[in-house]
Amino acid sequence: MEAFTVDEIPLVKPGDDIAAMICERAGLEDGDVLVIASTIIAKAENELFSLEDITPSARAIGIGKRDDKDPRLVQAVLDRCSECFVESPVMLVQSDRAHVCINAGVDDSNVENDLLADLPQDADASARSIGERVEEITGCRVAVVVTDTNGRAFRLGQTGVAIGLYHATPIYYWRGKKDLFGYEMQISEEAVADEVAAAANLLMGEGSGGNPVVVVRGIPLFTEEKTSARQLYRPDNMDLIKKALRIFKES
Amino acid sequence: MEAFTVDEIPLVKPGDDIAAMICERAGLEDGDVLVIASTIIAKAENELFSLEDITPSARAIGIGKRDDKDPRLVQAVLDRCSECFVESPVMLVQSDRAHVCINAGVDDSNVENDLLADLPQDADASARSIGERVEEITGCRVAVVVTDTNGRAFRLGQTGVAIGLYHATPIYYWRGKKDLFGYEMQISEEAVADEVAAAANLLMGEGSGGNPVVVVRGIPLFTEEKTSARQLYRPDNMDLIKKALRIFKES
Ligand SMILES: Nc1nc2c(ncn2[C@@H]2O[C@H](COP(=O)(O)OP(=O)(O)O)[C@@H](O)[C@H]2O)c(=O)[nH]1
Ligand SMILES: Nc1nc2c(ncn2[C@@H]2O[C@H](COP(=O)(O)OP(=O)(O)O)[C@@H](O)[C@H]2O)c(=O)[nH]1
Ligand SMILES: [Mn+2]
Ligand SMILES: [Mn+2]
Ligand SMILES: [Mn+2]
Ligand SMILES: [Mn+2]
Repeated sequence: MEAFTVDEIPLVKPGDDIAAMICERAGLEDGDVLVIASTIIAKAENELFSLEDITPSARAIGIGKRDDKDPRLVQAVLDRCSECFVESPVMLVQSDRAHVCINAGVDDSNVENDLLADLPQDADASARSIGERVEEITGCRVAVVVTDTNGRAFRLGQTGVAIGLYHATPIYYWRGKKDLFGYEMQISEEAVADEVAAAANLLMGEGSGGNPVVVVRGIPLFTEEKTSARQLYRPDNMDLIKKALRIFKES
Repeated sequence: MEAFTVDEIPLVKPGDDIAAMICERAGLEDGDVLVIASTIIAKAENELFSLEDITPSARAIGIGKRDDKDPRLVQAVLDRCSECFVESPVMLVQSDRAHVCINAGVDDSNVENDLLADLPQDADASARSIGERVEEITGCRVAVVVTDTNGRAFRLGQTGVAIGLYHATPIYYWRGKKDLFGYEMQISEEAVADEVAAAANLLMGEGSGGNPVVVVRGIPLFTEEKTSARQLYRPDNMDLIKKALRIFKES
């Protein structure tokens, strides 16, 4: 397996054609996995906003005071989530657009002026439109994985995760396959799309590297099937940790 | 970045010299990251056990009945954890030896006969002894990451994570570094060791592939510092999700 950055991507602006930017700079091959940071998709899709346009509610002002946070940012997060599991010291929420994450995925780093970047409205759709455009330009059929950087339970630090997929396998099911000694394997579901997102995030970094696009080559992530990052999200009614956080909040 | 398996590793047996096995089969270079599945370390260190030697307690029998699980396996998990956060439908526990995980990391796949594999007693120490031995044999200074496959909150499927480190950076701190537009970055801690573990796990797989060792080359994970996988574990008193699970359990 090999992973490399697509170099010299400029600062992305609303309306930019990310697929064309990539194809001009990378020699793509059939079966490549194109991993793209959600931040540049948000920029291209003009999912940017300014705190100056936000009026915080009393609740946002309260949370902001307690946690020493800009109440307008708090309001922006509240506006973008269907449920807030943890309010303090960080806001862990179910974002409206994608996954469970801190601050509803709103990002203030690597965005110009005083703008903030939202998550893409529908990162699967973004992945699809980039993947289709790549095929149109190059004739290559690639898998696309849109990523964000996200924290985890029980462990410190953040890792890259998948929030949008196009022709990319989300989970590989080992159940029923044989192990080394011929025994049938039990529940074993490898979240391969997240593993690819994590691998690519090593090359992207979080800072001024300017590396929002990574090509991963040599792993069979491409699939003919229609896939979605939602296949990686634990259904609400099967999520014991969400349940526990709800009860904790009431207590 | 490049990642490749070390091929033709035999079935590992108690007492085997894993470092020698690897050095005979891979052309290692300074700065390489050697990623090793904990299962083969457990085998080499003879951390294997049989259910036949376990007598389940009343509690284990109760959990086993409810969840249709072998009560001896339940007992093995209870014996290996300091705290059980979730009992059913899966046992999510604080393992005595390493991380928060399902079944205290006890594994029945890829182990011969009816044996089960424990986590290594001290995976940092295992990583160190392999790393030192590699240096002795080849003269190369490598980073070592011992991995296990682990589930996550809010998301489906499992990914590779780091549970033992030697000369490998656990977390890269972006805080204080500049972003693309020259602004100082806020809290941003990239769990690079886990990202490397995830990348390597793509090549290991969970089944009969026989690929317990992966070399990752071309990323600056090697560090002169003494590091530990414990640096990746969220301290108990800072862990809101553990707190919520404790209250949920009592409710
Ligand atoms: N070339 C270029 N790189 C960008 C741009 N925006 C972000 N990046 C880079 O993309 C990578 C990931 O950025 P990050 O803010 O962590 O994105 P996120 O993980 O999607 O929230 C970093 O290397 C940034 O420097 C851009 O407009 N142009
Ligand atoms: N060659 C070889 N491969 C092994 C051995 N034990 C496990 N593996 C392989 O190591 C990889 C990871 O195995 P897994 O059971 O998922 O390990 P874990 O993630 O540490 O629990 C798979 O490709 C297995 O086939 C062994 O003794 N010899
Ligand atoms: Mn982000
Ligand atoms: Mn990021
Ligand atoms: Mn395991
Ligand atoms: Mn595994």
